[in-house]
Amino acid sequence: MGGNVMKTRAEIFASASVAGGKEFNGPLGKLFDFCDPCDRFGMKTWEKSESEMQRLALNIALAKGEITPEDVGALFAGDLLNQCVGSAYGLHGFGIPYIGLYGACSTCAESLLLASLMVSHKMCNLAAAVTSSHYCSAERQYRTPLEYGAQRAPTAQWTVTGAGAFLVRGFHQEESTLSSGKGKAVVRNCLIGRVQDSGVADAANMGAAMAPAALDTLCRFFKETQTTPETYDLILTGDLGYEGSDILRSLMKAEGYDIDSVHNDCGRMIYDRESQDVHGGGSGCGCSAVVLSADILPKIKRGELSRILFLATGAMMSPDSLKQGEKVLAVAHLLEIERE
Amino acid sequence: MGGNVMKTRAEIFASASVAGGKEFNGPLGKLFDFCDPCDRFGMKTWEKSESEMQRLALNIALAKGEITPEDVGALFAGDLLNQCVGSAYGLHGFGIPYIGLYGACSTCAESLLLASLMVSHKMCNLAAAVTSSHYCSAERQYRTPLEYGAQRAPTAQWTVTGAGAFLVRGFHQEESTLSSGKGKAVVRNCLIGRVQDSGVADAANMGAAMAPAALDTLCRFFKETQTTPETYDLILTGDLGYEGSDILRSLMKAEGYDIDSVHNDCGRMIYDRESQDVHGGGSGCGCSAVVLSADILPKIKRGELSRILFLATGAMMSPDSLKQGEKVLAVAHLLEIERE
Repeated sequence: MGGNVMKTRAEIFASASVAGGKEFNGPLGKLFDFCDPCDRFGMKTWEKSESEMQRLALNIALAKGEITPEDVGALFAGDLLNQCVGSAYGLHGFGIPYIGLYGACSTCAESLLLASLMVSHKMCNLAAAVTSSHYCSAERQYRTPLEYGAQRAPTAQWTVTGAGAFLVRGFHQEESTLSSGKGKAVVRNCLIGRVQDSGVADAANMGAAMAPAALDTLCRFFKETQTTPETYDLILTGDLGYEGSDILRSLMKAEGYDIDSVHNDCGRMIYDRESQDVHGGGSGCGCSAVVLSADILPKIKRGELSRILFLATGAMMSPDSLKQGEKVLAVAHLLEIERE
Repeated sequence: MGGNVMKTRAEIFASASVAGGKEFNGPLGKLFDFCDPCDRFGMKTWEKSESEMQRLALNIALAKGEITPEDVGALFAGDLLNQCVGSAYGLHGFGIPYIGLYGACSTCAESLLLASLMVSHKMCNLAAAVTSSHYCSAERQYRTPLEYGAQRAPTAQWTVTGAGAFLVRGFHQEESTLSSGKGKAVVRNCLIGRVQDSGVADAANMGAAMAPAALDTLCRFFKETQTTPETYDLILTGDLGYEGSDILRSLMKAEGYDIDSVHNDCGRMIYDRESQDVHGGGSGCGCSAVVLSADILPKIKRGELSRILFLATGAMMSPDSLKQGEKVLAVAHLLEIERE
């Protein structure tokens, strides 16, 4: 009984992406709504820069959606900083009822999932989902201060400096405007992830630690909905990076699902592997958020994609838990998004 | 439009409380389901002790409710530790679909609110809400390691060592068993809090920082539902403590609501002010969770309370954000719980 796929009818009707300099210089750089080449966003600390990115992202999304904060019934937000201060300080000025989340890098999917459920069941008319990560605040909190100049492991991923904001509202069949050629991105199904113990204790290989969570969620979804990878144009994971993506594809094959031809990962898309020195690819809450907002949702609306699975994975660990000998736990939440 | 009271029909049908030695020696000590006088719960680190409390609490709640983990569709959980590892490591073994939350000390209300919404709208049959705090893990993370022997400010609160777990399911009118004399605790209404900037920067006076958030939520609730404090047997805040409770009562009077005769605070109830040296009273996610589970819900079921407001307040700050000159932000989520 527990843990079934939940049906939703929620349109992601506006979104915005804010990113840093390295992201601007990547393959998707021109698609982001706002970039600051120096990553500071006018702030004196990296933590405040991250908050400012969230504020900017939600502000731009509200402007695009022609919505005022008073119209938004619930705001779901989270980030990687201790006590999720990136979200709280960045967003409190909007005055929107606030649900703080912690799902590590799965937060983009987690927040969109809850927002979609809420508007689908008419608990409120509009809901927002916002998340972020910042390379500089993440490095000094999770690994070492930048000034230390530590050498990165080959599997280490590069935390994306970016924030994404999404606005969702209930969607009813009769509103479909496909005939007019303008498609809408509608969240049709959601599946909440289960926390998995990966057995991995290497903080420099999060992709490997998170792949089993993506495996669990994907297999549960395929089994319950009786679909296969071929049903979808794209199966998009959040930030498994190069290492984790390869592991997920192998693990899926062992379960009888070949996702190679339809799988991609936001952590593989956001940087250029050859010219940008990011080792294992991109990561962080902001990675999937900005790629989904800037690249994927527009493709759905334009008709270049018609039915996708989006699942963001999060490593539920802390630097202290690893020092105390724990393995990395991970979770992956899934949304099926379809053009209607 | 935004931020309305949300109607729910959710029965809290089982709950459990796990607490430490100081809590066992307090006025409610005999009511807790399980206590460890040494606060260790068999673990070698305080962080693992906190995880173990969450595991025990959910385990006991499942046993009381005669439910297996497979029957639970969604688990909402969070705690005060960096990256909320108390919840992730404590609960991953149950294999229940997991939504990680961060609402600081408001997490008990936040998790119950989301769980109640979910079962009320039949997104799943059963949902669980679990939260915790631990004096020893909180002190070394937020303030100073215990070994340092720092002197506490008069307004400083004592983080409760405790975990509470709640199981909720949809409740339909026809099921009412009041005629049989056995009441049920039903969540009838919920209101999501808005993040407030308290203007307080003193990390040793969280009660003062959180009172404005409780004020905002309570006033919004009274206005929208057109009720007054007299409508309720009890208005129970989570962990404002002595200082914060006095401030809330004064602030409410200024808004035209006299709550003095019906207000109490879990942080005032859990320790004996005279014999236990806790200065400002109890605090922490676990404070409201164990008091609600062990004291309040049984009183509702027995008929000693028939209609209450429960609102837990959380300070959305981090030690780093205060060092960077930010004020303490706070949020308060509200549930109306009625005997049916």
